[in-house]
Amino acid sequence: MASVLEIIPLGGIGEFGMNCMAVRYGDEMLILDAGMGFPEESAYGVDVSIPNFNFLYEYRDHITAIVLTHGHEDHLGALPYLLKKFNVPVYCSHFTAGLAESKLEEHDLLGDILLHRVEPRDVVDIGVFQVEFIRVSHSLVDCFSLGIKTPVGTIIHTGDYKVDETPVIGEPIDLRSFRRYGQDGVLALLSDSTNATVPGRTPSERAVIPAFEEIFSEAKGRIVVAAFASSIHRLQIVLDVAQQFDRHVCVLGRSMQKNVEVADRLGYLDIPDGLLVSLNEAKMMSDDEIVFLVTGSQGESRAALSQMAMQSYKGLMIEEGDTVVLSARIIPGNERLISRMIGYIYKRGANIIEEKRRLVHVSGHASQDDIRIMTEAVRPKFVVPIHGEYRMLFRHKEFVKNHLGYAEENIVLIENGDVLELDGERAVVTDKREIGRTFIDESGFQEIDSETVRERKQLAYEGTVTVVVTIDEETGELDGEPRIAARGVRGLSSDNGFRDDAKRIVAAAIAGASRQTLADESLLKEHVRVELKRFIQKQTGARPVITPVIVLV
Amino acid sequence: MASVLEIIPLGGIGEFGMNCMAVRYGDEMLILDAGMGFPEESAYGVDVSIPNFNFLYEYRDHITAIVLTHGHEDHLGALPYLLKKFNVPVYCSHFTAGLAESKLEEHDLLGDILLHRVEPRDVVDIGVFQVEFIRVSHSLVDCFSLGIKTPVGTIIHTGDYKVDETPVIGEPIDLRSFRRYGQDGVLALLSDSTNATVPGRTPSERAVIPAFEEIFSEAKGRIVVAAFASSIHRLQIVLDVAQQFDRHVCVLGRSMQKNVEVADRLGYLDIPDGLLVSLNEAKMMSDDEIVFLVTGSQGESRAALSQMAMQSYKGLMIEEGDTVVLSARIIPGNERLISRMIGYIYKRGANIIEEKRRLVHVSGHASQDDIRIMTEAVRPKFVVPIHGEYRMLFRHKEFVKNHLGYAEENIVLIENGDVLELDGERAVVTDKREIGRTFIDESGFQEIDSETVRERKQLAYEGTVTVVVTIDEETGELDGEPRIAARGVRGLSSDNGFRDDAKRIVAAAIAGASRQTLADESLLKEHVRVELKRFIQKQTGARPVITPVIVLV
Repeated sequence: MASVLEIIPLGGIGEFGMNCMAVRYGDEMLILDAGMGFPEESAYGVDVSIPNFNFLYEYRDHITAIVLTHGHEDHLGALPYLLKKFNVPVYCSHFTAGLAESKLEEHDLLGDILLHRVEPRDVVDIGVFQVEFIRVSHSLVDCFSLGIKTPVGTIIHTGDYKVDETPVIGEPIDLRSFRRYGQDGVLALLSDSTNATVPGRTPSERAVIPAFEEIFSEAKGRIVVAAFASSIHRLQIVLDVAQQFDRHVCVLGRSMQKNVEVADRLGYLDIPDGLLVSLNEAKMMSDDEIVFLVTGSQGESRAALSQMAMQSYKGLMIEEGDTVVLSARIIPGNERLISRMIGYIYKRGANIIEEKRRLVHVSGHASQDDIRIMTEAVRPKFVVPIHGEYRMLFRHKEFVKNHLGYAEENIVLIENGDVLELDGERAVVTDKREIGRTFIDESGFQEIDSETVRERKQLAYEGTVTVVVTIDEETGELDGEPRIAARGVRGLSSDNGFRDDAKRIVAAAIAGASRQTLADESLLKEHVRVELKRFIQKQTGARPVITPVIVLV
Repeated sequence: MASVLEIIPLGGIGEFGMNCMAVRYGDEMLILDAGMGFPEESAYGVDVSIPNFNFLYEYRDHITAIVLTHGHEDHLGALPYLLKKFNVPVYCSHFTAGLAESKLEEHDLLGDILLHRVEPRDVVDIGVFQVEFIRVSHSLVDCFSLGIKTPVGTIIHTGDYKVDETPVIGEPIDLRSFRRYGQDGVLALLSDSTNATVPGRTPSERAVIPAFEEIFSEAKGRIVVAAFASSIHRLQIVLDVAQQFDRHVCVLGRSMQKNVEVADRLGYLDIPDGLLVSLNEAKMMSDDEIVFLVTGSQGESRAALSQMAMQSYKGLMIEEGDTVVLSARIIPGNERLISRMIGYIYKRGANIIEEKRRLVHVSGHASQDDIRIMTEAVRPKFVVPIHGEYRMLFRHKEFVKNHLGYAEENIVLIENGDVLELDGERAVVTDKREIGRTFIDESGFQEIDSETVRERKQLAYEGTVTVVVTIDEETGELDGEPRIAARGVRGLSSDNGFRDDAKRIVAAAIAGASRQTLADESLLKEHVRVELKRFIQKQTGARPVITPVIVLV
C-alpha cells in the first residue's frame, strides 16, 4: 500500500440524493455524509434508497468516524442504517445533531451512538486526518464545508452551499477561511454541482422577503405557506412577516413541526411569544389573523397541503378566499403530483402563488458565479464535481474549464464506486467498486433487497398465475382438475372460457409428460410452467409470472 | 327532450392528453377528436390510456360522425378503439387522414372505415350540424379549428392552435374566418388551455431557424437532431438547414420515418432530391456531411437517441465531437429519463444543445396573447377552457376574466363527464356521466381493464403469497404439509425459518377450523387467508396479496 489517498463515492454522483463518500488513507477511513435517495421504484413499495454499504465490511476495522456536512435527508437520511452496521463516532454541527438525534431515536439507536457537536472553525484530529468545519450558507442552517488535511495534501469537500452574504439566520459563508486554504494550497476541491447549469449568482435567502410582504399585504383571507420543512431561513421569514402583518402562525405536518421544534429548542429560530397557535386556536381565529405553515410543497398525497386541498386535514380545508404560497422548487419527478394538487386548490376557489409567478423561493445551491467565487478562493489543483446528475457534473466541468481556465486534466469526473487515487501530484481512477442501492420501506424502516423489487416489477408488469396440480403418486395421473388462480393478468377472465382451456392444456401437459419428468418435481413444475406460459401468451399476448405447485397424493 | 345542445367531454379536461368530446342535439351526436393519454400507470404494463367509451353505447344509433381537428396522438390515438365500437364516418384533413390510415392499417380496420378528407373552409352538413373546417397553425400541419353551427347557436372548437403568421409549411392561421364568425355571433368558444399560463405570444415556427443555422455553422462533427416526429415544420427546417450547410439527412426511428414518409407523400414536406440517405450511406460519409434526424427527445429508452447514447442503435453510437440538439420540450413526467439520457450523451463526449440554452424549440400552443387574439376575433358569449390540467384551465379563466373583461358567469369550467347544456341563453352543467379510462397495452393493441391494473398495483406494492392446503375429504384433516410460494415479499426468505413457521400457522388454522368452515371451501379459504395474513404482517410488517388454494383428496 503506497502513500495515496483514496476517495470513493458511495452515492450522489450521477444521481440526485444519496450523498456519501469514503476517504481512505492507509488503514484509516472517514465517511463523509450518509444520505438517502428518492428512487423511481416508488411504485414497488419502496420509499427511499440508501447506498449499499456492503463493500465497507472489508474496511470495518478501519472506519474511524462519520462526518456530516449538514442535516438534509440526502446527506443524513442513511445515518441510522450505516450506524447499525458500523457504530463509529459522528461529527456534525449542533443543528445537524438535533435532526440526527430525532432520527436515531426513531430507530432506537440514540443511547448507543457517540455524537460530537462541533462549531464553525473547530479543527478535529481524527487519526491521520485533520478536519476543519467551515461555515457555509445553504437553505438549512448550521451547514459546513469540510477542510481535510491528509498526508498527501488538503482536500475541501463543499457539502451543499451557496455564497450568501446576507442569510436570514446566522453569519455569512466564511470565505476568509476558504481563502486561507487557497493560500496554503489545496490539492482537490470536491464541489457541489446541483446548480452548475444555472448562470449568475444564487440569490440570498433574504431575496424572497419582498414577495412575502406583498402577498401578506394583499391577502384578505387565510394564508397557507407550503415549504420544505428543512428550509429554516424560509420558516423564519414566514414567522417574521406574519408578525409584521399581525397574523398568528399554525405549523402543520409532522416534519414541519419537528423541524420547528428542533430549530426553536437549539435557538436557530427566533419565535416571538404568542405567535404560534395550535390548530384548534387557529380554527377559532378570523381568516385575516392566521397563516398556516405546512408540509406538502411537492404534492405528496399524505402531506398536509394535499390533504387540505383534496379532502381535509384534521378538519381543515382549502376554501375560497385562501391564498396558497408554494415556497419551494419542484423536485424533478414530482411535476404531475404538484400540478394535480394545484388543480384541486384552484377548484376550491383559492388563489395560488407559485415560484414561477413571484420570487417566493430561492435555491440553496451554488450557481455558476458562486462556483466561480468558491473555486477562485480555494484555488485547488484538482476540481472534482460532486452532488448531481451527470448532466450537472459535466456542465460544472465545462464551466470550470471554459470560464475559470482549468485544464482538462485538472478536472476529474468520477462515478459512484470509482476509487480516485491522489498522491499529491496526480488524480487517477484506479479501481471501481461495486456499490448498489438498498431500498427502504420507511413504514417499518425495513430494507428491501433488490431481488424482491425485481420480482415486484415483474408482477406489476404482467400479473401472476398460480397453477396447482394434484397427482396420484402411484399412477402418475392427475387427481381432479388443475386449479388456476390469476391476479393482474389481462384477458384472463373466467367468462371467456379461458380458464377451462388453460386447465385442459395443463392436464394434457401432465398426461404427455415422460416418466422421468413425472418422477422429478422440479422437472414437472418447469414442464407445466412452460406449457401454460406458451398457451397464455398465444391466447392473450400476456406473459404473467407463473408459479406451478405440485401436490402428490 | 328540450331544444338544448349538450357538450360532454370524454377526456382532455383536467388532464394532459386524451382529448375527446361529444356534442349532442336531439338524437344526433358528433364526436370531436379521439385522443389517447399517457397515464402514470406505466409501471403496471400500461402504455397509453383512452377514454372509456361505454357511456356512448346508450347513443350508439345517434352518433353520426367523428370529426378530427388534427393528427396528434392526443387527438387521434384512440380512433381505432372508438371505431371498433362505433363504425361511423370520419372527417379530417388530408394529412390527418394520412396518419389515421396508417393507424387503422395497424389495427386491420382500413377497409372498413369511411374517411372524408376535407379542405380548409370546407363546410359539411352532418345531420343537424353544419361543420366548417378553419385553418389554424400548430406544430403539426393541416390542423383545424371547427366552426359548428347548431340549432341553438354556433360553437367554435379551437383544437390545438397558436397564432402563427409565418409558419414554415402552409398558410397562416385563418383569422379572417374567425372574425367572420365573431361578426355573425358565436355562442361558445371551446378553447385550448395548454399554454394559458404563459404570458405573451408563442413564437412562430420560424423562430428556431437562426439557432439551427448557428449550430450547423459551428458543428465540426456529426449533428443529431431529436424532435417530435409529428413536428413537421421542425423537420422541414432541419432539412432546409442541412441542405444549406451541405449535409445529408438520415432519418431514424420508426415514428420519424413514418411521419416523414406520410408528409412527403402528401406533399407537406419539400425534400430536395438526394438529401435523404440511408443509414448505410450515412455511415460511409464523413462527420461533417451528415445530420441524423431521430426520435427519442423524451429519453424513451427504446427510441433511437437513447439507444445511440447508452449502447448503440443499429451500429450507431454517439461519439466525441457529435453535436446533439434536443429540439423539443420536456413533457412533464419525463424529466428523469431525459436527464439520464443527457448524462450518457455527455459521457460519450458529445456536445448537447437543449431548449434552455438556445431557441431550438417553440411551442405549438396558444400563449396568453394568442388566446387574446382568438377570443377577441370570435367574441363568444361563453368561453369554455378545454385541453389542459385544471391549473391551466383556471389560469385560462383568470386571464379571460382579468384581461379580456369577461364576466365570471360567461366563463364555464367543466370536467370530464360533465353534461354542459346550452340553450342559446344559458350554459349550465346539468348532469355528470361516469367516464373512466381504459388502459392499453400497445404491444398487442389490447385493452387492460382497470381492475387488472388495480390488482397489479397491489402485487407491485407488497408482492404475493400462494398457500396450497391439501385436505383429506373424509377426515377433514391436512394431508401433507401446506405449500407456500412467495414472490416479491420482503423478509420472507426460507433461511430465516419464516416459511416453516408460516406452514405451522396454516396447519394450526386448519386443525382449529370448525366443522362448518371445513365443509365450505370459500369459508376455509378466507380462514386460512386471514390467519396467514395476520402472521406475515406481525412477523415482517408486509401485507402481500394472499391466494389460498384448497385441494380436497
